[in-house]
Amino acid sequence: MSGLKIISLGGSGVVTQNMYVYEYANELLLVDCGIGFPDVQMPGVDILIPDITYILEQLKAGKKIVGMVLSHGHDDHIAATAHILPHLPNFPIYGSPLTAGFAEDRMKEGGTDHKVTVIDNTRPFTLGSFTVSLIPVTHSVPDTRHIVIRTPVGIVYHGSDFKLDPTPVDGEASDLTSIKAVGDEGVLCMLIDCLRVERTERTSSERTVGPVIEGIMASTRGKSVITLMSSHIHRIQQVVNAASKHGRKVTFIGRSVERNIAQAQQLGKIHFPEGVLIDKNDMDQYPDKMLCVIVAGSQGQEGSSMMRAIYGEHRMIKITDDDTVIFSADAIPGNELNYFGAIDELARNRVHVLYPDVAPGLHQSGHASMSEQRDLLELVRPKYVLPIGGADRHRFKFFESVARPLGYRSEQILLPSSGDVLELTPNDARVVDRIELKPPIVDGLGIGDVGPVVLADRVALSKAGIVVVVLVRKNRQFDLGQTMIISRGFIFVRDAQEVIEFIKQEVATIVSKEKKAKDEALRHMIEKRLARKLYKIIQREPLIVPVILDI
Amino acid sequence: MSGLKIISLGGSGVVTQNMYVYEYANELLLVDCGIGFPDVQMPGVDILIPDITYILEQLKAGKKIVGMVLSHGHDDHIAATAHILPHLPNFPIYGSPLTAGFAEDRMKEGGTDHKVTVIDNTRPFTLGSFTVSLIPVTHSVPDTRHIVIRTPVGIVYHGSDFKLDPTPVDGEASDLTSIKAVGDEGVLCMLIDCLRVERTERTSSERTVGPVIEGIMASTRGKSVITLMSSHIHRIQQVVNAASKHGRKVTFIGRSVERNIAQAQQLGKIHFPEGVLIDKNDMDQYPDKMLCVIVAGSQGQEGSSMMRAIYGEHRMIKITDDDTVIFSADAIPGNELNYFGAIDELARNRVHVLYPDVAPGLHQSGHASMSEQRDLLELVRPKYVLPIGGADRHRFKFFESVARPLGYRSEQILLPSSGDVLELTPNDARVVDRIELKPPIVDGLGIGDVGPVVLADRVALSKAGIVVVVLVRKNRQFDLGQTMIISRGFIFVRDAQEVIEFIKQEVATIVSKEKKAKDEALRHMIEKRLARKLYKIIQREPLIVPVILDI
Repeated sequence: MSGLKIISLGGSGVVTQNMYVYEYANELLLVDCGIGFPDVQMPGVDILIPDITYILEQLKAGKKIVGMVLSHGHDDHIAATAHILPHLPNFPIYGSPLTAGFAEDRMKEGGTDHKVTVIDNTRPFTLGSFTVSLIPVTHSVPDTRHIVIRTPVGIVYHGSDFKLDPTPVDGEASDLTSIKAVGDEGVLCMLIDCLRVERTERTSSERTVGPVIEGIMASTRGKSVITLMSSHIHRIQQVVNAASKHGRKVTFIGRSVERNIAQAQQLGKIHFPEGVLIDKNDMDQYPDKMLCVIVAGSQGQEGSSMMRAIYGEHRMIKITDDDTVIFSADAIPGNELNYFGAIDELARNRVHVLYPDVAPGLHQSGHASMSEQRDLLELVRPKYVLPIGGADRHRFKFFESVARPLGYRSEQILLPSSGDVLELTPNDARVVDRIELKPPIVDGLGIGDVGPVVLADRVALSKAGIVVVVLVRKNRQFDLGQTMIISRGFIFVRDAQEVIEFIKQEVATIVSKEKKAKDEALRHMIEKRLARKLYKIIQREPLIVPVILDI
Repeated sequence: MSGLKIISLGGSGVVTQNMYVYEYANELLLVDCGIGFPDVQMPGVDILIPDITYILEQLKAGKKIVGMVLSHGHDDHIAATAHILPHLPNFPIYGSPLTAGFAEDRMKEGGTDHKVTVIDNTRPFTLGSFTVSLIPVTHSVPDTRHIVIRTPVGIVYHGSDFKLDPTPVDGEASDLTSIKAVGDEGVLCMLIDCLRVERTERTSSERTVGPVIEGIMASTRGKSVITLMSSHIHRIQQVVNAASKHGRKVTFIGRSVERNIAQAQQLGKIHFPEGVLIDKNDMDQYPDKMLCVIVAGSQGQEGSSMMRAIYGEHRMIKITDDDTVIFSADAIPGNELNYFGAIDELARNRVHVLYPDVAPGLHQSGHASMSEQRDLLELVRPKYVLPIGGADRHRFKFFESVARPLGYRSEQILLPSSGDVLELTPNDARVVDRIELKPPIVDGLGIGDVGPVVLADRVALSKAGIVVVVLVRKNRQFDLGQTMIISRGFIFVRDAQEVIEFIKQEVATIVSKEKKAKDEALRHMIEKRLARKLYKIIQREPLIVPVILDI
């Protein structure tokens, strides 16, 4: 009997960029297709998308994709569809109502038109040898699902992002009954969101955020300006309810939040009491104290509506010192500079600004803490467990603090390295192959492959700039008087001339000495020796680019 | 009567890079001289130092520096001395014992040899028209002082970094009696550390950290490997005590921590029970379970001893999966990538690693929370209060949550903008001037001034690279066939040739059309038009550098 392969194309130990392949015999089932976010080692890069080389190779080998299932509507689970689907043959895509709506929106924006089949119940549907059913769980976007995949080898429980909110805003609690029923059937392997395993106390209910926002709103003289994750419909619902209670009209500013609200409204996932919702163009018809403005850009993203509003550059919204601005979101790790920069700018302008660091109730996570992870694991009781959606420290903490205390042995807790191909049989789980994952990078219009060389160059350029040495050669003789040095981002301004002269002399010395060197060798020598000299005198390593111009 | 001027040369709303000028008549008193840390908008920059242009101008105008007083031994208060003192005339420098020791070390390393006069009591000493005394307060480095400056205009209380630790590790509590006595004299203006104003609960005593570390040490089979701020002598003392209790030998690895321990030991600021301290070269004479190794690099700094140990590249220390690694420090905001990268790497290697996110008691701040700031303000009761050492959000939060509730009126709470020159008289405080502060940047060996243009270039280079266009001209005629395009860090690799041809054609078109343009105008046109074209087709903006080579 052949096994079931499981491969994470976003990489293991990666929080975003979610995409999984389930492979049985000649069939591939895909789960999620999300983008990732570049770090400081990838300057200028817009987004990362999963590497589908493995899929393309399997297709060439005659295998086929039986379908794709989307777990929930966050960009790191759906937004790479626009980039990836054009490279794949057609296959059906499935998701819950809001997930389908958000995914179709993202694809349309990316110029890719695919329908997502809506699944709004827990009834199983068949995709080749796989039988799939979706179980509702709570998370920071409505209609989040865990995915039960029945395979010829056994049941896999794909438990991506979730929390166990006992009092969800929309009343739709995690379907623990169905989850337990799956567990009772006997689950071979469970994948489980381990991101928040560092926290022991249960994650607070999303419902606790509403009263905090309402309290602030009640004591605000001017506008209530609120920024939050644009897909956080439950939180937005609470803001709407609070605004309605306090006689404020609600409007939305910013492409992402406007688009998401339109989608959620169409699907009945958000409810506006009669007369509360107004068009952003009608804001000026109401006094500030009657307004609640929900603005996109809770991370202080450059160019976002929130940042433009803060810097007084937004045509529709002016923030005054009677207003209160609420950041109902934490800083994403690594993004503190932008996030706190926005808050500092408001403070400088004497605007009353509140954020979770000063008003902790203003944000609650959408992820299960250690104790809820334990609860879910106990409910499902799989033979093998594979923590996902966290960095390595989270995966190993899950191993140590969740799975092991529940009696799992080391060989039952799967911690693949990035690119590992896992194979499961009813009695065994092991790494059978290793693929190289190079996250393709979407940069600008996404043409071409930026690749590690260009990125390494960018990092080097950013640290000490570039020195281009143009050597002029006439009739096989270098004209050293014509040597041209072009530099940018290098350390000198005042002393530039002096250093350029120094470089010219060094180059002249090398060229004169190495009369017999071939062009490539000469360029290489200039690069190396100049680098060494410059490092010696100024301890910096600009990118040195020698070129030869034959006249 | 002339007033007292107060200027922050590191900028207001800045956490690090501390340096203050107190100016009365023709005398300048300097307080602190610390470095700052560059953010992602300053790639390749090592450190920032305060801008002393204002001081140099005053010296030229015939004023003189009567002295410098250092508040405590952290780099953001002392480490710019090495860079700045060579540019200033000689004057006496004062500090508490450990502060003086650390500052002298830093200056020696920087090639500047200055003595710091040690002040180890609260007795006033005179510097020109100023009378200064130092009052002990608790903080995350021993021998921290608040500085009382008696001026002809009134008393200024310079309350930089502090907490009010009721049970300090070295038994040296904040001298509240002396502080209250100064308050009773009547203080004109108080500067006060507002960094941790977002937290309402009192900052926990440093003493609470020791038992947490000891508990972990007790259950560690192999080595206890601990990394923390290298100047945190009190925490190191607690580690030493715990190690001694559990029969472990202590050794130090890393230049910064070894240097600081040598200094602290010499001054009697740290105590090693008989036989506990061993030389790092003797580690191999003990079994792992008898070792406690304190390693520099708690932020996961590239090249630090900790990082080399983690990656198995350190000659002296190998970390095994029997060891426990403790990060007894939080990530500095903005540095998450390095810090968590180090922890993730340990987790990947199945090393047991603990850090404040999973063991909250492993770190306590050295800064006063809102409630302790309130206590200190009540004790001193100045006429004017000026929050320092925080970002703008902290300064305004202090205004709102500390000073105002204690009855201070807006005009008594001073919130200068960066570069503002404050002037105080017994009955008035106002901004009388504004200076431009350009933080000089130390990059490489610190020769020259990097300046905003070079930095802006580096940021641009990092985002989309550079395209150099070399136009060859012979006898006043451009030889367009010789045009050379050099690009680095640009978005293409595979498609590079195609784009380079495109650029060549565009340049040829521009040059042919603009036959009459002067060189500078032509370069400018190429830059602008090419930028526009490239943005249109690939939505990226590389730095475009056209140069003309006359043959």
